[in-house]
Amino acid sequence: MGMGPQVGNLILKNEAGYEKFLLPKMPLDVCVAESQGQIAHIIAVQMEKLLLQHNIQKEVISIVTHVEVDGNDPAFKNPTKPVGQFFLKEEADLLAKANGWQFREDPRKRGWRRVVPSPKPLRVRSAEIVKQLTHEGNIVICVGGGGIPVVLDGNGSIKGIEAVIDKDLASAVLATQIDADELIILTDIPNAYLNFQKENEIALESITLDEAEEYIKKGEFAAGSMGPKMEAAVYFIKKGGNKSVITEAGSLSNANSGTRIIAN
Amino acid sequence: MGMGPQVGNLILKNEAGYEKFLLPKMPLDVCVAESQGQIAHIIAVQMEKLLLQHNIQKEVISIVTHVEVDGNDPAFKNPTKPVGQFFLKEEADLLAKANGWQFREDPRKRGWRRVVPSPKPLRVRSAEIVKQLTHEGNIVICVGGGGIPVVLDGNGSIKGIEAVIDKDLASAVLATQIDADELIILTDIPNAYLNFQKENEIALESITLDEAEEYIKKGEFAAGSMGPKMEAAVYFIKKGGNKSVITEAGSLSNANSGTRIIAN
Repeated sequence: MGMGPQVGNLILKNEAGYEKFLLPKMPLDVCVAESQGQIAHIIAVQMEKLLLQHNIQKEVISIVTHVEVDGNDPAFKNPTKPVGQFFLKEEADLLAKANGWQFREDPRKRGWRRVVPSPKPLRVRSAEIVKQLTHEGNIVICVGGGGIPVVLDGNGSIKGIEAVIDKDLASAVLATQIDADELIILTDIPNAYLNFQKENEIALESITLDEAEEYIKKGEFAAGSMGPKMEAAVYFIKKGGNKSVITEAGSLSNANSGTRIIAN
Repeated sequence: MGMGPQVGNLILKNEAGYEKFLLPKMPLDVCVAESQGQIAHIIAVQMEKLLLQHNIQKEVISIVTHVEVDGNDPAFKNPTKPVGQFFLKEEADLLAKANGWQFREDPRKRGWRRVVPSPKPLRVRSAEIVKQLTHEGNIVICVGGGGIPVVLDGNGSIKGIEAVIDKDLASAVLATQIDADELIILTDIPNAYLNFQKENEIALESITLDEAEEYIKKGEFAAGSMGPKMEAAVYFIKKGGNKSVITEAGSLSNANSGTRIIAN
């Protein structure tokens, strides 16, 4: 699950809490951790209610998840992911100097916004336990917000780092680690499309890995939207996964709905 | 682990974020969930570092934990646990009216503070999975802040409720549910004491359940401090536990240190 708005709000609350009460601001990895707790609680409560309604006996278990990234990932030199509020250029310059942050102007000219690195997820920690718990029939809620980003230091111990990880890609990494049968990526439209929102729009149904890669190369899928979902699907199939489905929740019960990405 | 300061800060950030950015305030159960994510992340990182240093091969796994309370617990009619900032009487009256909150004057006259219910923990959810994971040799971080309080509705599904649960008692309930060998409660002093901080102070070493209950009845242990720890130890032994230890972390390696509470 993605948690841009939740993490964004926690960052804003950090700012406001510092201004009003001098409360310490939490680093970004801690904000991601907070949002994992928040959303896991809310999802678990709803999930348990639905299971009961459908008479399904399964435990729901929520795990605070760390995800390893490479401290030398080029994303750290070129942060691209906007978080938090909009500032005037002058404010942004001051904040950049004071905190060592980077800012970018919003493409829609709403102001300047802090950008943070979005490094590639390498490995989801505790994946073996997630695998075991799911194989035992439990429903595991994890990798919230793409996971809490950590880097390995020289000794192999982990350290939080200020970044946010793409949730779709982190989920694909986990799906590979736990040998999942399918990777299902839910969004708010029923399919991925060619010529999206144009007159000649075409809903994609079953496509092969090669086709998916070709469409990605042609720029069919928007960055920050369908793009990372399709890349996550491609990652999963390339690493040996059988099938990835991109669709909306309401279409899940029909095996022929959504966009299915399969091996060549 | 207790998280009064963390939850308190999240509540203050809620206030400040609403004032400055009109961000929605999160209910108390969501604040507890956020603090579980936050602290689990920080503890897990440190724990993994220590395990590596001592060459111990164990997985650390952090679980977002719900704890059931009774919606008719008398604590809901008589909230006692102070959270968040101090207000002037006039401000407190306004907030009470606007939000349906209750306020109490601080015993040290620093102002008026919101008080929230602290109902008894009845059952830690997911305890079976915690038991399994610990028996398999993993280190499980859970019940942070006493757990996210939930009540069961008529159908058996859970619902978050605005309250905070005592962490010592919630841990004792979990220890009982998972048939723990020992319940160790860490604090920042080496023992529990009779006549604490008086000239005739006596460190308690090994005491029986009956002795512990007698000292509690005599008021030897301060409310909100050693009191709930001793009550948690008593709960655990009464429910069949072997031994409970109250001590500081540095004394843990010595089996004869701390205050040990055992069956009669």
